[in-house]
Amino acid sequence: MAGKNMIIAQSGGPSSAINASVAGAVARAMADDKIDRVLGAINGMQGFLEKKIIDVSAQMRTTDDFELLVHTPAQALGSSRYKLPRDSEEIYEKVLNILKEYNVGYFFYNGGNDSMDTVSRLAAFFKKRGEDIVAVGIPKTIDNDLVETDHTPGFGSAARYVAASVAEVYLDTIVYPIPAVTVVEIMGRNAGWLTAASVLARRSGIKAPHLIYLPEVIFDPEDFIARTRQLLESERQIVIAVSEGIRLADGSYLADTGAAEDMFGHKTLGGVASTLETMIKERIKIEKLKTRAIQFSTLQRAAAHMASDTDLRESYECGYRAVEAALQGVTDVMITIRRASDEPYLTSYAASPLSGIANKEKKIPIEWISKDGVDVTEEMVRYLTPLVRGDATEKMRGGLPEFFKFDTSEFVDPKRLR
Amino acid sequence: MAGKNMIIAQSGGPSSAINASVAGAVARAMADDKIDRVLGAINGMQGFLEKKIIDVSAQMRTTDDFELLVHTPAQALGSSRYKLPRDSEEIYEKVLNILKEYNVGYFFYNGGNDSMDTVSRLAAFFKKRGEDIVAVGIPKTIDNDLVETDHTPGFGSAARYVAASVAEVYLDTIVYPIPAVTVVEIMGRNAGWLTAASVLARRSGIKAPHLIYLPEVIFDPEDFIARTRQLLESERQIVIAVSEGIRLADGSYLADTGAAEDMFGHKTLGGVASTLETMIKERIKIEKLKTRAIQFSTLQRAAAHMASDTDLRESYECGYRAVEAALQGVTDVMITIRRASDEPYLTSYAASPLSGIANKEKKIPIEWISKDGVDVTEEMVRYLTPLVRGDATEKMRGGLPEFFKFDTSEFVDPKRLR
Repeated sequence: MAGKNMIIAQSGGPSSAINASVAGAVARAMADDKIDRVLGAINGMQGFLEKKIIDVSAQMRTTDDFELLVHTPAQALGSSRYKLPRDSEEIYEKVLNILKEYNVGYFFYNGGNDSMDTVSRLAAFFKKRGEDIVAVGIPKTIDNDLVETDHTPGFGSAARYVAASVAEVYLDTIVYPIPAVTVVEIMGRNAGWLTAASVLARRSGIKAPHLIYLPEVIFDPEDFIARTRQLLESERQIVIAVSEGIRLADGSYLADTGAAEDMFGHKTLGGVASTLETMIKERIKIEKLKTRAIQFSTLQRAAAHMASDTDLRESYECGYRAVEAALQGVTDVMITIRRASDEPYLTSYAASPLSGIANKEKKIPIEWISKDGVDVTEEMVRYLTPLVRGDATEKMRGGLPEFFKFDTSEFVDPKRLR
Repeated sequence: MAGKNMIIAQSGGPSSAINASVAGAVARAMADDKIDRVLGAINGMQGFLEKKIIDVSAQMRTTDDFELLVHTPAQALGSSRYKLPRDSEEIYEKVLNILKEYNVGYFFYNGGNDSMDTVSRLAAFFKKRGEDIVAVGIPKTIDNDLVETDHTPGFGSAARYVAASVAEVYLDTIVYPIPAVTVVEIMGRNAGWLTAASVLARRSGIKAPHLIYLPEVIFDPEDFIARTRQLLESERQIVIAVSEGIRLADGSYLADTGAAEDMFGHKTLGGVASTLETMIKERIKIEKLKTRAIQFSTLQRAAAHMASDTDLRESYECGYRAVEAALQGVTDVMITIRRASDEPYLTSYAASPLSGIANKEKKIPIEWISKDGVDVTEEMVRYLTPLVRGDATEKMRGGLPEFFKFDTSEFVDPKRLR
């Protein structure tokens, strides 16, 4: 008896680890008779609704393909910011019809908060309609802001990039015997986990980052200037790590206050780092003071060459376990990582109900932020340390990374699936 | 009979490979009886004149120290932008007196164009005064703009970082099904070698960069807009690599025309990438067009985690050979790399007279730039390919790089040297 098919799609912002989850899910599915084909929707639910569906299992032919996919950054199946409308029964009906048309019994969505909301709504709808289709979420976000799970796949790699790059930027800045302030801007609009990870730069035996500004703490410009000025009395060069999401007491994003007019008279967002750099230039008058703003931009989420091995392994495992849970009939869950201890680093996996996860946001607990609000505690360091561990030796050819690419030139004809 | 001491100093901008030259020089010197101690001046000639001199050989105790130094980015001995005044006999006299005070017979300067000018002037001065002190230059610059040498240590690692990062940024940008233009700004004020290296991103099987703008070619804004618009008709997402040094027909830097007023009313340099991004936003009206400007900033020169193994080995070799040449009494030279073939990659080393090197600048030959001026030729690809080869496995501990640090808390007392 032929089994059902499964389908997987990816969503949200890119990360270096998200494809490892697909690799893990496909590997588990292809090892089981109950699952016939592994389908993939291109560009998340948006592409799904347009039936942009490929036969993933047919394209994963060798162990090399799997390894290459694990180390390829950003969504190999494409992403989308499209969110299923909550109250449109019609759209859920359409999703269901497509799933039936493609004989799908297992639905997987690999993404962050919004994606988990979609999975939960779909699972509820299938149940309500008495359909035998399970829906399981696979976590992914460099922001590390999903609840119930100790951390999210994608975070460790981005954290490793941030920590190593802050250390390297610091080494760069100290070569000249002149005072210098470098402001490094790190992603994370509401949760400061990735900015906090800059603290690991200090494990390289350096003092940077000298200040850490998180979105969890209200930003006080006067205090910022006073601290920077004071630091420059003892340190010649300092590096400040700042989250893109820091806000003033009135709740406004600092990035917005830096709005400058460009050459054509348009308002442009200068970015937090540029705004702070300008404040320093304006307020701190030290001879020859060199200031610099650096945005890690998309590099921090796409730099597969700095992926953490721990992260890639866990990301693979989350995909693998999602399929395993689905095969057992479990639905309306997300795979979560539970930590038993930091050192040795011991974890287990669970399938946690989405009701407790979707639309919630995990911020840094206040106890993990230093009392002065510009640093993190030793607990945070212990939490972060195992996540960046291991050099995920990418597939390199001639010194440059190789990537896996799905052929999306042809979509699956559902008539040929049965 | 006790030998003479040698001294080495570093100068110019940071790179991931510059310390490998110091390691090579120290290794060769410590293996020879003719050289007693290896001294290091902190912060180039500036620190030298202030007698900020440390005993390098006393701090290099284990093979691990050497390996760590090879993989540490930016000048471990510090740098300086200070240039010896050309016409001040007095300052050369002062340098000579310090060298004699420290019983130095071998002087090495590790840097770019300006540093080579300094070495040449010092060598000439020592000769004129009949002093038995040799001066040898060790090349280093990510700009790859020194003449006589096939390429410069530091370039290959920066090139590898640029190529891999452009590829990763491209993978990041293609995940959404919306049109997008990403402009990536790369260092190189007058020579476009590093920007040209972005072409190697295509070796990862991708089309980016779609356009390459070099300082060797006059920048035409109208042509830029026309090409970008045309590309967007066939490609959904494009990445444009641009040198920070591109200029308009009147010779002005494009970066300067992007000057915007910051929140305090000051003129700030927006950077070339931001200027071009703004031009695209203004001139190309495509629905939902996403634009982004990324500056690789100091990351491209300090990212030791992406150092090319070829580069580090050659950098080490240049330092090693500099000491070897000096021991043979050769002076007023710089170590150069000669390439015999691209594939297999075969090279030899020489000591070339500084008269033909100092104050000259090697730009990209016009034949290596495509006829349309927005790409490079296959010759350029063949030239670049071997230079990025090899993953220079850094010393990692817990997934993060470890660095070597000289102890500069105490300087050498010259009285204790004899």
